[in-house]
Amino acid sequence: MGTVTAPWKQLLLNALESNSHIKHSSFFQLATIGSNGRPSNRTVVFRGFQENSDKFQINTDSRSHKIEELKHCPFAEICWYFTDSWEQFRFSGRIDVIDGSNPEALKLQQREKSWFASSVKSRLQYLGPIPGFPCISEHPNQEIALDPSTGPVGAFCLLVLDPDQVDYLNLKSNQRLKFISTLGLNGVKSWTSERINP
Amino acid sequence: MGTVTAPWKQLLLNALESNSHIKHSSFFQLATIGSNGRPSNRTVVFRGFQENSDKFQINTDSRSHKIEELKHCPFAEICWYFTDSWEQFRFSGRIDVIDGSNPEALKLQQREKSWFASSVKSRLQYLGPIPGFPCISEHPNQEIALDPSTGPVGAFCLLVLDPDQVDYLNLKSNQRLKFISTLGLNGVKSWTSERINP
Repeated sequence: MGTVTAPWKQLLLNALESNSHIKHSSFFQLATIGSNGRPSNRTVVFRGFQENSDKFQINTDSRSHKIEELKHCPFAEICWYFTDSWEQFRFSGRIDVIDGSNPEALKLQQREKSWFASSVKSRLQYLGPIPGFPCISEHPNQEIALDPSTGPVGAFCLLVLDPDQVDYLNLKSNQRLKFISTLGLNGVKSWTSERINP
Repeated sequence: MGTVTAPWKQLLLNALESNSHIKHSSFFQLATIGSNGRPSNRTVVFRGFQENSDKFQINTDSRSHKIEELKHCPFAEICWYFTDSWEQFRFSGRIDVIDGSNPEALKLQQREKSWFASSVKSRLQYLGPIPGFPCISEHPNQEIALDPSTGPVGAFCLLVLDPDQVDYLNLKSNQRLKFISTLGLNGVKSWTSERINP
């Protein structure tokens, strides 16, 4: 709902730009809290911002552990380290889990959009066996074909992280900034920033 | 206390070897649970295994948030992605926080060893202002000098993560392995492994 662009966004866009020649620059680590109460951490792929917003999109399999975890605790922290520019961003916020059973038409549209934005090859993995389960076939997926015009399958899930706190660290200049958001009575998010010790 | 080398260790040593030409190959993301109950995630540097063990060493500032967090919940998960070989390791386990007040002489020795193993430049940061606090000086640390023979300062803290679960994913071969440890009645840790779906 923010009307003003978040002040950390230009820093991130600059980092993405200056690291764009590196394949893994769109990878970051997403921490959640496991059902056993322990932290859980894995690499995921940045799928862009949700239209006209500062919310991060991630595609995932609705059968993976993180979905169960996010139902227990919807909070997550992204740690994104840019290996070429030596910059780290930490984004803390709440995740909205959007699977095929979502009651909101707009969210189902966003999920569909994210499905078609990903490659056919990456769509195929959602037709494979349950992630994290014991492997029973030596050659999974080999006979599976997918019509490129087919919409999102049941296992396809869109995660949308809405950050409310951002920690930026630049290891070249040794500068660190903290951004904190507050929600106004009008529902508009506003951000304050402060230089903190690295 | 394991007498047998953990079965995941050779995989990790191979990954370290094949990515050793990359500066950031010793960086990984450490997830903990914040005092507010939310996940917390940041990049840290691997400082080697503790002697004759499969435990990961990390140096940190005892004044940083993660210390407070680990006192609430000692569990953490490392996510280590090797950008050249496309391998991901997730190490879940308990962290032992070793600061200067530790009552065990052996642990104080390990802390001292880790202090002297790090560069004088990186030791200097423990003499700087409190990490995460508002920045009040434009040019911190400029007048600080440190005698290289001086032992660990108060803010220097050694973290030791003892993994009890490991998740290995190879994105080139699309293979994934899960390693789980059990503690025998004799106090010896043993590991089982299983192929799971990626």
